Order: sequence, then structure tokens, then C-alpha cells
Amino acid sequence: MGLLHKLIKLDKALMLLHRALRPIKDFEEIEIRKTLGRILAEDIISSIDIPPFDRAAMDGYAVRAEDTYGAELENPKILRVIGVSEIGDPFRGKVSAGEAVYVHTGSRIPEGANAVIPIEYVEAIGDKILVRKTVAPGENISKRGEDVEKGTRILEKGQIISPADIAMMKAIGIRKVRVVRKPKIAVMACGSELVDNIEELSPGKILEYSREIVIGYANKLGAETIDLGIVPDDESEILNRIQQVREKVDLLVTVGGTSVGKHDLIPHIIRKYGELFFHGVSVEPGKPICAGKMDELPILGFPGLPVATFVATFTILIRALERLTGVRGRYAHRTVRAILRRKIWSKPGVRTYVRVRLTRENDRVYAEPIMISGSGILSSVVMSDGIVVVPEELEGVEEGREVEVIVIRDDIPF
Amino acid sequence: MGLLHKLIKLDKALMLLHRALRPIKDFEEIEIRKTLGRILAEDIISSIDIPPFDRAAMDGYAVRAEDTYGAELENPKILRVIGVSEIGDPFRGKVSAGEAVYVHTGSRIPEGANAVIPIEYVEAIGDKILVRKTVAPGENISKRGEDVEKGTRILEKGQIISPADIAMMKAIGIRKVRVVRKPKIAVMACGSELVDNIEELSPGKILEYSREIVIGYANKLGAETIDLGIVPDDESEILNRIQQVREKVDLLVTVGGTSVGKHDLIPHIIRKYGELFFHGVSVEPGKPICAGKMDELPILGFPGLPVATFVATFTILIRALERLTGVRGRYAHRTVRAILRRKIWSKPGVRTYVRVRLTRENDRVYAEPIMISGSGILSSVVMSDGIVVVPEELEGVEEGREVEVIVIRDDIPF
Repeated sequence: MGLLHKLIKLDKALMLLHRALRPIKDFEEIEIRKTLGRILAEDIISSIDIPPFDRAAMDGYAVRAEDTYGAELENPKILRVIGVSEIGDPFRGKVSAGEAVYVHTGSRIPEGANAVIPIEYVEAIGDKILVRKTVAPGENISKRGEDVEKGTRILEKGQIISPADIAMMKAIGIRKVRVVRKPKIAVMACGSELVDNIEELSPGKILEYSREIVIGYANKLGAETIDLGIVPDDESEILNRIQQVREKVDLLVTVGGTSVGKHDLIPHIIRKYGELFFHGVSVEPGKPICAGKMDELPILGFPGLPVATFVATFTILIRALERLTGVRGRYAHRTVRAILRRKIWSKPGVRTYVRVRLTRENDRVYAEPIMISGSGILSSVVMSDGIVVVPEELEGVEEGREVEVIVIRDDIPF
Repeated sequence: MGLLHKLIKLDKALMLLHRALRPIKDFEEIEIRKTLGRILAEDIISSIDIPPFDRAAMDGYAVRAEDTYGAELENPKILRVIGVSEIGDPFRGKVSAGEAVYVHTGSRIPEGANAVIPIEYVEAIGDKILVRKTVAPGENISKRGEDVEKGTRILEKGQIISPADIAMMKAIGIRKVRVVRKPKIAVMACGSELVDNIEELSPGKILEYSREIVIGYANKLGAETIDLGIVPDDESEILNRIQQVREKVDLLVTVGGTSVGKHDLIPHIIRKYGELFFHGVSVEPGKPICAGKMDELPILGFPGLPVATFVATFTILIRALERLTGVRGRYAHRTVRAILRRKIWSKPGVRTYVRVRLTRENDRVYAEPIMISGSGILSSVVMSDGIVVVPEELEGVEEGREVEVIVIRDDIPF
């Protein structure tokens, strides 16, 4: 094409963006049960030991390990049962030589005992037990602090909170925790030809739907979205709209108005009133992506053709949200390895995103490229299960090759 | 151990459960933008063509392809520009032999034209253009119905709705859509020794936190949860609680009270008042899982030690939710292939779930088994990034082998 300003590689674009976006410093303090999927804004350090005391790891008898030494199937040791340590009612006495206390899994190990003989290795006769197996000191006991030792950092700032993390926080007595404030993303579609309802269509008008992809992904990844609707190709109207949200959001994403043509105002406006970081990324589809800032508001300008919007969202927005939230790792999609059913074509120097449908035959997974091309064909995304990324240095991928497919559906048809 | 009733294999357990659970038939009709992550309760069939007319796929000139035949770089064809087809204001005339109309990407192709010459292959001189390249009929045109043909099923009942699906539904003029009613899951912890707040702890009392894992996963997968709190080991109190929710939920999950011991009432109660499908599944940890129903209410009885609760949730609850919601595929976790850093031990005949931490060195991913064993050690889950499943027929996995790791975190540390 040659008309876009110099195309930059995706990695470069992400680096520039990374530098320009500042991680959100605000936090909310909320009840742990409401933190699922949120991002920790503090390290979590345990102020207690778990378990708080030595406890039985199995049903059986708490004993002094040395009393079992020499016990064999045919030659049992005999111990005297002096009590029971109930879970809700621990035995308060002491276990001395030749004695045993019945324990349930989880109940407190009485003083003097240092091991538990599982119930199946013991024969009870009145208040005596025949022990047919030796146990080592510590065997079948959960030691105090074995799960969590006081002072241990159990969760790290920047982690996405999982169900098990919530349980762990409850276990150490935490009720509320600081999480990163949700990123606020404003989304605006640009184009005088666009309408928002199918009933408003008239000759030459086009229904806008690409911004739903941006809004959907932002919501899915835990952002709050503000939908600014459709703005005509008019500099002052666009500036107005930007002004309205400037101090309310962490990021503005525009959809449309970035490819080369008369109405492509977004990169023009950013350059005129702010700083344009780049315009044009060597990805296909999605090339006319731009980014910049105006008055400290970061702006991503995404192309309006829906497949291009999708690729821009997938490659840029997700990474921007990671940066804003300071998430420890990455928001990663599931991947599967699959055998390519047909040759993929791509231009060297351009990172190409090919939509594929996954099928399974005789335990092998195949990726069938959806051949309909064109950035306007949203059905090519909807019909697909995943994406194969062809890196810049390759010129297509041959049929029959194994490829990594990034799965874009939460269910998969096999 | 031999004390649990005959252990059944996980696959068998899932089959029994599958038969007992009935997919939810109720639906809600909601605005498309609120459907993200919900499950479609109907097929979506387009009642329109997209695009609704032939439109330009590039900026350039709409022409009759045959007028360009023979054009070469050094020997251009000359055409006369008779107008512009703006996106919001299409050209209403007809393109005849020797004529061309300027078109923007997305604008309507005027009658008579059947191809678009991209702007970069054209030199404009006054109202004439020099065409230096031939185009074939249909080239650079998005044909009417090329994206979606009227009558096509674009989404399928049972699909989880993605951001692109929402955009697609908007594109075909759909405002509201039927989605499966959210599954309602009641969760109850059982045990007289349990307390719900760290302040209530006294000798022999244990803080309950395992049910947070069940509640968290159910919420994460789109269920509504009702927390029934803690119930003591008392048959009539448990029956009471079940009675309260019997007609309000699709599934009851109990946590605790399923392993063999005096207080293990859940399987006992299910057998006594309903039908027990199984008690004891050959998975490690997590063995004392039971399932059954009472008065048509399906009940899953999960063990209370947190790692066992986690494995039960991971293996059984997720599958139960798929069945209830009628989701087309599966709720699948991300997986990565990694090299095992240390030997894993497992008992033959038992499917074993080993927690691992993932690391990356020189572009290779390694899985480090977290060696702390015991179903009580929740930190082994919290510290891990994923799970390696050792199937029943294996006896451990050797160090250095490549394994598939099911990733249980939404972020990963590399």
C-alpha cells in the first residue's frame, strides 16, 4: 500500500504503548469473596501458622513412633488406648510410653505423641490395640505451619485472584483485601456514514457493530467500559467527545477513522493536538492501528472493519489492559496444537492472523483455515475457533504442518 | 484404604452424573450486549445479507474490468471519472464503457462497474485516470451476502457468546436474544467442628474455607451461587437445609462429611432418603467424592480437605455445569506442554492430580511438581500454576518427560 506512514512491527508498537501507559495506582478494598478475577494491589502475608497445631493426617492412633519399632504383621506391638482426640474436643492428656490415643483426620495430636498409625494397620481389642507396622516420627501428622508458615507471602501483588486464593485468604483470617481499581475504557466509533440501529439504515449508511468487539473484550478482561457511541467525521465533535471523558478514563479506544482516506481523522487529530506514537502496524488484518496521547489521555485508534478491529483488540488492547492493571503475567488464551488442513498464505514482513476452525478426527486435531479474506468479513471470526499467527519472517505455512492455534472460544466443539 | 465403598473411575462417575443431571430448559431474553459469556438458548439465523449491496473493498476507482484489459505500467488505459461514491452518499448513475467512479473502502459499487482498481495503480490527471494494471471482474469488491448470506445460521444453540458474536448479532439487526438461565448452585459446608470466622476459633474448632473454592469456580463459570454456610453433623439439620433449597436450585454441593469416619453423614443421608449414585472415585486427592439425588435434587458431596475439594471441583463440578447449561463444547482450561523437573509418583489405578509450578528457561517451559502432599495443604494449590494429570494406567511420570499442564491461573508468570 505504501500510503500509511511507515508500518512498524507489532513488538515495537507494544513497546511504545507500554512506555506510554501507566499502571493504575488506585485500589479498592473489598470483601475477599468479591475479588474473584480481580488483581491484587498488595502482597498477602500470613500472620498465622496453618495448621495452627500438629494434627492427624489420617484416621488412626496417635502414638510415640518409637513404641512401634519392631512391629510386624506376625509380631504386633501392643499399646493401651487412653482416650480419643475428637476434632471438636481434643484429648488434653499426654501420651506416654506404651500408650495411644484415637485420632480423626484433622484432630489435634496429643502431647507426647509424634506419629499416627493408620486405622487399617491396627486391630483393637478392648482398650488395647495390636500394632502390625512401624511408623516413623512425624508420619501421618500435619505439622503446625506445614501448609502456611507465619510470615510467608502467599499471594503476590499483581496476581489475578482465583477461587483457591479466596479460600487461602479466608484461611489466614483475611476478610477484605486491596485490589486494583478496574480500568476504565471509553469506546467511540467514528464515521459520518455510521448508524447505531438497523432501522436508521438508508442508502450509503452503514450499521456500526465493530466497537462491540472492543467493548466485549474489555468487559471480559475486567474493565469498566463507557460507550461513547458514534461520532461523525468532524474534528470539533471528536475533540468534544474526547474532552468529555478525558479525566474519567484510563484509555480511549476509537474504532474507525484510521485508514487512509479523506475521513481518517483520528491519527490526524492525535498528531495535531497531542502526540502520535505510531500509525500503521505490520499486522494483517488490522494494519491501520494508531496510538498516541492527548493531554495525558492514552488513545488507541483501531480500524473499523470488524476483522481488523478484532485483530487490533486481540493484539493491542489485551496487552494495554495488562499494562494498566499491572497484572503479574499475561492474559493468555488457551492454545492447542493442530495440523494445518490447507496452506496459509502470508506476506513476508507482515504478521498475519489467520482464522481457523478446529476439528478432531481419530484423536488428531486439525485446523482448517477459513479462506474468506477481507477485513470486512466478521463471519470469518464468528465461524472460527481460533487464530494461527504467521510471524513476520515466514511466507505462509504449508498444509500438513503442525501449528499452534490460539483458541478464541471458551467452549470448543470437541 | 479399602474403607470407602468400591472406588469407581472418574469416567464412570461422570457418566452417572451426566445421566442424572438434566440440562436447564429455562431461558432469559436479554439485550445482546449483556450476553457476554452466556450460553445461547437458540440458533441465530440471519434474516439479511451482509453486506447488503456490493461495496468497495479498497479505496480506488470502480470500473468495468474489461476496460482495464491490456493495461500495463508503460502502456496505461485511460478512463474518464464521472463521479464519486461517498460512503454516506453513493453515486446514483451508471458506469459505462470507458468510465470510472471514485470509491472509498465500504462505499457502494455503482451500477455497471464490476471491479475496483486500487488507488495506488492509478494516476489522476484532471477528470481522467491512467490505469496501469488490469483487474479481474469482482476484484476488490465485497459482494452482497459475502459476509453473511440471508438464511445462514451464524450461531448455534449452546455456544458461549463471545465479543465477536455480539458484534455479529448486532450486524444482522438482533437486539435481544435468548440465553440459558444461569444455573443455581447451593453450597453447604458440613461439620460440627467448623466455624466461619477466625474469631470463633477455639480448641478443636477448625476454620471452614474449602467451600470458597466451589463457590468461586461456580461463579467463575457463570452460575449463581447460594451459600448455605456451615451445618453441623446432624441429620435433621442437614435435611432441613436441603429442604429449604430443594426447589430453588439446580444442584447442591456439600463440602465435608464424605470421608470415612463417624461424622460422615452426607453419603449416608443421600442413601437413606434418596439415591446414591456413587461414593468414592479413584482420583487422588479427592477420593471421597459422592453424588446422588434426593427428591430430584442432584447432590454432589465433596470432601472437605481443601486440595480434595479443589480436585473434586475441577474434575466434577465443571463437568456438571457443562451438563446443566447444555454448553456445546467444554469449559476448557488452557494447557501448556512442559518438561517435568522431578519424578512424579502415583498409584496405579488412581488418576492423580499433581500441582506444578511453571518456569521458563531459555525458551523451554518446565513443570516443577510441588512436593508437599496431603489434601489439607491448600498452599500447594495456591503456589501452583497448573495441574499434571497422571492417568490410571501409569505409575508416576519420570523426570525429564514432556507433560501436558492444565493451567489453573488466568495469568502466568512468564
